[in-house]
Amino acid sequence: MENKLAINSPYQMDFSALVKVEAPATVANMVCGFDVLGFAVNEPFDKMQIRFKETPGITIINDDEYNLPTDPEKNVAGAALLAMMEELPSNIGFELTIQKQIKPGSGVGSSAASSAGAVAAANRLLHNYFSKEDLVRFAMNGEKLASGVKHADNIAPCIYGGVTLIRSIFPLDIVALTAPPLFVTIVHPQIEVKTSDARSILQQKVLLKDAIRQWGNIAGLVAGLLQADYALIGRSLEDVLIEPVRSILIPGFDQVKQQSKEAGALGGGISGSGPSIFMLSETHATAKKVEELMQQIYDGLGLDHHTYVTTINHSGVRFVDSLITEQTPS
Amino acid sequence: MENKLAINSPYQMDFSALVKVEAPATVANMVCGFDVLGFAVNEPFDKMQIRFKETPGITIINDDEYNLPTDPEKNVAGAALLAMMEELPSNIGFELTIQKQIKPGSGVGSSAASSAGAVAAANRLLHNYFSKEDLVRFAMNGEKLASGVKHADNIAPCIYGGVTLIRSIFPLDIVALTAPPLFVTIVHPQIEVKTSDARSILQQKVLLKDAIRQWGNIAGLVAGLLQADYALIGRSLEDVLIEPVRSILIPGFDQVKQQSKEAGALGGGISGSGPSIFMLSETHATAKKVEELMQQIYDGLGLDHHTYVTTINHSGVRFVDSLITEQTPS
Repeated sequence: MENKLAINSPYQMDFSALVKVEAPATVANMVCGFDVLGFAVNEPFDKMQIRFKETPGITIINDDEYNLPTDPEKNVAGAALLAMMEELPSNIGFELTIQKQIKPGSGVGSSAASSAGAVAAANRLLHNYFSKEDLVRFAMNGEKLASGVKHADNIAPCIYGGVTLIRSIFPLDIVALTAPPLFVTIVHPQIEVKTSDARSILQQKVLLKDAIRQWGNIAGLVAGLLQADYALIGRSLEDVLIEPVRSILIPGFDQVKQQSKEAGALGGGISGSGPSIFMLSETHATAKKVEELMQQIYDGLGLDHHTYVTTINHSGVRFVDSLITEQTPS
Repeated sequence: MENKLAINSPYQMDFSALVKVEAPATVANMVCGFDVLGFAVNEPFDKMQIRFKETPGITIINDDEYNLPTDPEKNVAGAALLAMMEELPSNIGFELTIQKQIKPGSGVGSSAASSAGAVAAANRLLHNYFSKEDLVRFAMNGEKLASGVKHADNIAPCIYGGVTLIRSIFPLDIVALTAPPLFVTIVHPQIEVKTSDARSILQQKVLLKDAIRQWGNIAGLVAGLLQADYALIGRSLEDVLIEPVRSILIPGFDQVKQQSKEAGALGGGISGSGPSIFMLSETHATAKKVEELMQQIYDGLGLDHHTYVTTINHSGVRFVDSLITEQTPS
């Protein structure tokens, strides 16, 4: 670290610098890719901005309606920044302003967007001192605070963009996968599914024959994405292990899935641990049809809901209006 | 069928036609791709030739030392041809000569080579009346005769060449995967491992966390193959479920694997259900080094063995010296 950038003087903390980012929502547990495959979407996203502050430590300002903690140790973005600061000189201070637009608990990576957005923004202030893999490592501390588990399947696509594979978590091995253009329809029915409940409902053991079917499908899905084979993607979007258990927590799930496929969607499933559901389509027209039927289904069930029709975000955290003076490290 | 090619007259059975093929050995259960990923190699291979005969039915001539059954219902090539003939007019007759070079029971797809080679050769006589997928379907009957299970993970690479994914067996869904140049070292220690024993030793249930690790690895392996990323291929060649159980049936396995990786091999594992072991390398020099250490290990253990240094066969069953008069179907 000493040889790269010694951030140890007020001079190198440019107090006029300001970084604004948009940190995208992400879909983890991509059907057969439970715990390992996730992707970023272009909407919704959180807005965040960060600057150095004169005193060491972290100040968090919430510019939204969610009343999230401002104590850095209790805020997922704070936890991620704290992990980053352990690898920086002790005189560094950050002021982070968060304008959350991804509703917490919706299952589309709200905590990951906060954690990943914060460290990606801070890293820009630090002239990209850290690698993307470092950023994932730091942001995973936010996930640990949120759910008790250091998982990376939302964090990685938020940082890298596109579809990412977490081949292994210890040691961390992230594989960025190319994907053809895909339209994503998301419905967030306003019910609560706790990640801890969604975890505890799963069996610790599964049938080997089901596991084989699952890894045949994930292999097909990866091949379909890399070869831009929409039909193969569609055939591979099958989860015989997790979805049958978890989908019972989400009213309307079976209807949404069946009708979406009848309307031409390639397939989809539970986003993260729910309650949001996502569907992939080859065309915008199909994705809009899917949105309509989702709305009809949840109107029929009398459940409040939000829907999004969006596309895969290939860049990850976006930098907007950054005021940074590029400087050569001394 | 009637509209494509009505093979119902002696005229269309060209008794002077002769098709000679080489049907390659194959490696199934490609490490983390248990039951779904396999690949074909250029050596060893079986030699076969087929011609129409004047009387209906199948005549099998064995031109080798193995004393395999000549009754078509008891011979894997016969079983495959019989399945094909159920979709042909009843007056068809084939004479098949088999010169087996892949030792039965070695774990490199000996039965698959016979079954796949026979139907591929017959299909050439029939002016490619059937699709490759049809051929896999027929040849699986040979596998059923050999092992009691209609599996396709040797048959598919033998027919298609390269690395193939059996995403699903019912319905059959075969995905041909591109792969970068790879050298393959195979050692066949002369011990018997019965497929039925290798199957019965497996637990019916596995830990979900192990299954997740396995599908992270197969996803990484497919991405590594399609993106020609040798390092990723190497990292992904890990099997936490099957190999730890089955490798105890193969003396020397751990030594072969460890020393091969130390010598620079990307990785490898049990071929099929054993006893053969395969290792993948990026260069011919490494593959040769791996062969030497395999020989040293089995010499040290006092076990007879054969080794092969070969490459991935990208064409599947090869057609050599075919005497066919191309004719337009009447």
